[in-house]
Amino acid sequence: MNTETQMNTYKQQVEQALEALPMAGAPDALKDAMRYSLLSGGKRLRGILTLAACEMAGGNAQDALPFAAAVEMIHAYSLIHDDLPAMDNDTLRRGKPTNHVVYGEALAILAGDALLTHAFEVMAQSRHPRALEALGEMARAAGVSGMLAGQTLDVTMQGTEPNMDLVRDIHQGKTAALLTAPVVAGLMLGGASATQIEAGRRFGYHLGMAFQIVDDLLDIEGDPDKLGKSTGKDEEEGKLTWPACVGMDWARQDAADHIRHAKAALAVFGEKAAFLTALADATLEREN
Amino acid sequence: MNTETQMNTYKQQVEQALEALPMAGAPDALKDAMRYSLLSGGKRLRGILTLAACEMAGGNAQDALPFAAAVEMIHAYSLIHDDLPAMDNDTLRRGKPTNHVVYGEALAILAGDALLTHAFEVMAQSRHPRALEALGEMARAAGVSGMLAGQTLDVTMQGTEPNMDLVRDIHQGKTAALLTAPVVAGLMLGGASATQIEAGRRFGYHLGMAFQIVDDLLDIEGDPDKLGKSTGKDEEEGKLTWPACVGMDWARQDAADHIRHAKAALAVFGEKAAFLTALADATLEREN
Repeated sequence: MNTETQMNTYKQQVEQALEALPMAGAPDALKDAMRYSLLSGGKRLRGILTLAACEMAGGNAQDALPFAAAVEMIHAYSLIHDDLPAMDNDTLRRGKPTNHVVYGEALAILAGDALLTHAFEVMAQSRHPRALEALGEMARAAGVSGMLAGQTLDVTMQGTEPNMDLVRDIHQGKTAALLTAPVVAGLMLGGASATQIEAGRRFGYHLGMAFQIVDDLLDIEGDPDKLGKSTGKDEEEGKLTWPACVGMDWARQDAADHIRHAKAALAVFGEKAAFLTALADATLEREN
Repeated sequence: MNTETQMNTYKQQVEQALEALPMAGAPDALKDAMRYSLLSGGKRLRGILTLAACEMAGGNAQDALPFAAAVEMIHAYSLIHDDLPAMDNDTLRRGKPTNHVVYGEALAILAGDALLTHAFEVMAQSRHPRALEALGEMARAAGVSGMLAGQTLDVTMQGTEPNMDLVRDIHQGKTAALLTAPVVAGLMLGGASATQIEAGRRFGYHLGMAFQIVDDLLDIEGDPDKLGKSTGKDEEEGKLTWPACVGMDWARQDAADHIRHAKAALAVFGEKAAFLTALADATLEREN
């Protein structure tokens, strides 16, 4: 299977898992608000990473499917809360009005809370022997030393002087943590050794840092139609970005370096790393 | 040990576990906002239930301590988000300004998210053989068919005509679910049988329903100084309460009936049920 076909297969598996989430007992208003953001397209990169990492370690992607769905729910929750008026106050996401614009702030807060909680509910239903370990990896990545650390710095440091260490910390937390956890969790569920998991952790870190630098670059020079959101917001809001620290040319070079390191980390997986290697390369070329 | 001494011992164990949470890697601003609400007093009823249920089943309370801390974190998160301007817009809680009044809305949203996520991070570190099962119970109770269902109905149904079935659903979700889960999780960690767990589930349900009816009554006739918050808010906001459905006298009687059912459910535990029986009785007498 070539990379693109494989990518689409994984993506469809993730979409189907998300579509099929029962959310039994949820009031309709809550379910609607959750599904509005969860099923609004998106690259499904985090879910794909979970499945691909599981297979790279020799496992069965089916075992990783609840975790792929969970990480996409965690990602969706973070976007809903991020877009709230008290946070980034964004009204457009993937070409559609944001959650609070459609459902109001109260339901948007609850829908975010519900997606986060449901992610853990779904993972806890797994009977895989390493389920608790994989769930813990997701919790840590989404938690106070991961994504929420990044978000907090992003919110509280807005408007301060760009500083490479600080921006690295923000990017590590806000983006790299939640790209690393699905790789690590997928590897665990696929039966990976400690050495393989450490390699996966390095891969995820560098992939995530490259991904965020490209994000920063797209906010400056991207096409709003392809992105599904307006550009130039980072500068307007005084966000701490990598191009603001080192300039556009160096930022492009740094993204390429991170991808080089990401691919090098996969050496331990030999030929089985082909798909994630191609995915890493594609991260540099993406337009949305 | 008499009931009061036992209650204080459990409460101190919960407080110490919460005080000792490392929250390693959390930015100071986030940690401060989390600790402000988490360590602001409170009865620690949910944490106490976790430890007591574990011991009632013959287990060691130490095994249940991470879960006691976790359920208190989940409770604290729910209060922070509940108090937000877009939700109940409360400015006073336990006699102190609410989280968003002190830290601003953005950090209050993040602190709530972080407490919820940290609860799962802490539970996932347990190596107890039934940890995943107990964690799943907490997730379900906090989730779309539990607490978040109750909150959603509470928010979306405000101002509609009181209706016993609807109010029962709201109370079941918003309150009883998160009083039942610590009982059930504690029992699991203590090695309880399926029959014992079902008995604990009935106990938690009736305790929770009584607890919420008493809450509704205190909002009408309680002492604001003892409660640490203003009263009369439910009526002002058109909240759906049990006294609004059936009147004060019947509401008092229904609370007493729920406590009777709660205690009856504990029969299967024999003498070991003494503490939770006394705790149930105390729920009817509480003034805050």
